[in-house]
Amino acid sequence: MGKPEINVGLLGWGTVGTGVSKILINQKHQIYQNTGLNLNLLKVAKRTLPAQRTGVDLANNCLTTDVNTIVDNPDIDIVVELIGGIANSRELISRAIRNGKSIVTANKALIAECGADLYQLAQKQGVSLNFEASTAGGIPIIKTLRESFAGNKVESIYGIVNGTCNYILTEMQKNGRNFSEALKMAQERGYAEADPTLDIDGTDAAQKLTILVALAHHIKVPLNQVHTEGITKITQNDIQYAQELGYTVKLLAITKSRGTKIDVRVHPTLIPNDSMLANVSDAFNAVCVVGNAVGPTLFYGQGAGEMPTASAVVADIIDAARSINGNSHVPIPPAWASKPHSDFSIGLIDDIETRYYLKLVVQDCPGVLAQIGTILGNQDISISSVIQKEPHCKNSVSLIILTHKACEANMCQARIEIDNLEVVQEKLTLIRIEEFDF
Amino acid sequence: MGKPEINVGLLGWGTVGTGVSKILINQKHQIYQNTGLNLNLLKVAKRTLPAQRTGVDLANNCLTTDVNTIVDNPDIDIVVELIGGIANSRELISRAIRNGKSIVTANKALIAECGADLYQLAQKQGVSLNFEASTAGGIPIIKTLRESFAGNKVESIYGIVNGTCNYILTEMQKNGRNFSEALKMAQERGYAEADPTLDIDGTDAAQKLTILVALAHHIKVPLNQVHTEGITKITQNDIQYAQELGYTVKLLAITKSRGTKIDVRVHPTLIPNDSMLANVSDAFNAVCVVGNAVGPTLFYGQGAGEMPTASAVVADIIDAARSINGNSHVPIPPAWASKPHSDFSIGLIDDIETRYYLKLVVQDCPGVLAQIGTILGNQDISISSVIQKEPHCKNSVSLIILTHKACEANMCQARIEIDNLEVVQEKLTLIRIEEFDF
Repeated sequence: MGKPEINVGLLGWGTVGTGVSKILINQKHQIYQNTGLNLNLLKVAKRTLPAQRTGVDLANNCLTTDVNTIVDNPDIDIVVELIGGIANSRELISRAIRNGKSIVTANKALIAECGADLYQLAQKQGVSLNFEASTAGGIPIIKTLRESFAGNKVESIYGIVNGTCNYILTEMQKNGRNFSEALKMAQERGYAEADPTLDIDGTDAAQKLTILVALAHHIKVPLNQVHTEGITKITQNDIQYAQELGYTVKLLAITKSRGTKIDVRVHPTLIPNDSMLANVSDAFNAVCVVGNAVGPTLFYGQGAGEMPTASAVVADIIDAARSINGNSHVPIPPAWASKPHSDFSIGLIDDIETRYYLKLVVQDCPGVLAQIGTILGNQDISISSVIQKEPHCKNSVSLIILTHKACEANMCQARIEIDNLEVVQEKLTLIRIEEFDF
Repeated sequence: MGKPEINVGLLGWGTVGTGVSKILINQKHQIYQNTGLNLNLLKVAKRTLPAQRTGVDLANNCLTTDVNTIVDNPDIDIVVELIGGIANSRELISRAIRNGKSIVTANKALIAECGADLYQLAQKQGVSLNFEASTAGGIPIIKTLRESFAGNKVESIYGIVNGTCNYILTEMQKNGRNFSEALKMAQERGYAEADPTLDIDGTDAAQKLTILVALAHHIKVPLNQVHTEGITKITQNDIQYAQELGYTVKLLAITKSRGTKIDVRVHPTLIPNDSMLANVSDAFNAVCVVGNAVGPTLFYGQGAGEMPTASAVVADIIDAARSINGNSHVPIPPAWASKPHSDFSIGLIDDIETRYYLKLVVQDCPGVLAQIGTILGNQDISISSVIQKEPHCKNSVSLIILTHKACEANMCQARIEIDNLEVVQEKLTLIRIEEFDF
């Protein structure tokens, strides 16, 4: 069914464009496995040549400086706009739509300003216009609002949608920095532009909010009607006082319905320390959607950066390709095909390596820890920390051990030996540990 | 384009079925606005009649005790299976597929066991088989894995997918209860079945994990090959010791790839207190997916219950309806149509009601708080707490005030008056507060 190969052209080969080309080329087989689609990166337009990117090899004749060889190319099915800005992108996308091409864009400014015009044109021409990457990077919030929550009335949305501001506020809170130090760090780490104005004054968040509001509340909100306050006036004192009162300061993009009115606003906000949103740190994004059926939900991930944003762009390309092929329903999951193919087989639990929490109840006598330590050591299990609790009944103490990573099979053997020790009064409790940095 | 009306039949009218009927009937217009689709709930089958449900009025002749009037009804386009169990559901779904109907099911046991057979049958017949509600209730994790992350290699998944266990572990940690007390509370609140075995022994989580693994790693894992440990052996002591060491105990469903092997396991796990997953409390679910492009992501929401699960079922019905209508791309967002219609207009920021954080720097002299309190009181703004800091420089103190909910217009007026007070040395800092219970 459909075309054997879908040809894709990229307008722009900056950070996100590079990520998209990496996925389309290096994970071509993975995408075929996931979706049954053959996506072919036919052309990439870049302002100046020569150009190379580490980690990806474009095919011969793929790179061009002439956008027209993409926009007007009859062989190209999907045009991916990653140039940014408004006037030029708008012209190129409009022309590509008129040429019958499906469009994918990551351009929030363009969609916030010209989404309606472009969509109407796309509808007239019967092509797709997808823009998942325009808001919250790799987080699939656009698809969720349009498809997964289509049976809901959206009651409210609270978004941390600007990674720069969230990084700055996190640095101010966790490491006691003042605003300008934190901003400088954000710039050094590539989270903030040389001119960070549109991030820190809330404009970037407001643009994204208008896109979310269009989808959730069916209303086009001009940017100048979004009440927008940035984070430049937030001081270290404010953050400390808020903490003392049990609150964390976050820049939130908020929309709420009240009767027939909706609020649309971006401003620094105090939110309770123990709420999920308050725990969104560093440059991460998160969007909380409250639907009248689904209740409160939260979607968390990286809102910017080469590969997370490219992940969203490629998802849009795949959706557009399915539309072109007339595959209106998602194909059979490969695992459930009549001849399933997987790169994987199931690993044995004995083979996993993980850290462990061990709890022992032992006799309160000399040499116990040495006996246990010897058994663990013989199995190549290294101890990372120990707590010995005061005796909780006569002659009996609890011993808590955290280990470094060890092999499960070794731990099983050690467990048998420990449980057999005369000094051990209750069988070992073993709980595995997973470390996350998110 | 497509059928003017898509007819839906429900098999089962228990908790989730009631929720689905509420959405399809009471939010028919909302769904039309969101999607352009006319969904018609034609038939609902229930084992015994009469039956009534508060909050929803079925049409005349809608209720039946005869499932065949749905499965074999030529007018019905989409059959929604909400009966549960395996043998009977399997037979009904298979017959409905052979009759050319698209299928939506929330039945995790069925999909975990018979997903492959049913999918192959559906593919042969060219109909959809959707099962979003089978895993993590209202959280759109199935669609995310199949569509939004289709450009990724999934590296690992960590899921809190059993609300009963998460509620029990949260009660044990936050309120110091022992396992059996917490289980009893879960039963009293309707989170746990009268026989909670399949929840607390990890089977329910293992079933859901096999569905996630099929989608992420393209491999069908029999339930008996999932290493499964429940939470029944976790003691209050374990939870306390873990806390002292900086960890929280959660029942996690885990899959990780290592080379050509994947781990597939469900067990109690220590995870760092400051990780997002550790902050998932009560009966909430969350699924963390790490993709090689998108990086770490987390999806959070209610994993069970009438309306959240119904939200996922209705999303599947909408997807199936789009397929039937040949609408392979999502229609124009209503906000961007040439004649947009919204139930909403944009509210004025002056009209919002919210709580406020106020920071003042004032002269350290008698009567200051009274002056400020008077201004706030005159504007109907009530104070919820005050902190007065020790003087940070001579004759100058910081005053932090949190207010109860107040009207923004009143606060603006109060702000002007406060800033005009002679005793006020720095202009008022005002940050709005949002309260969340999630």
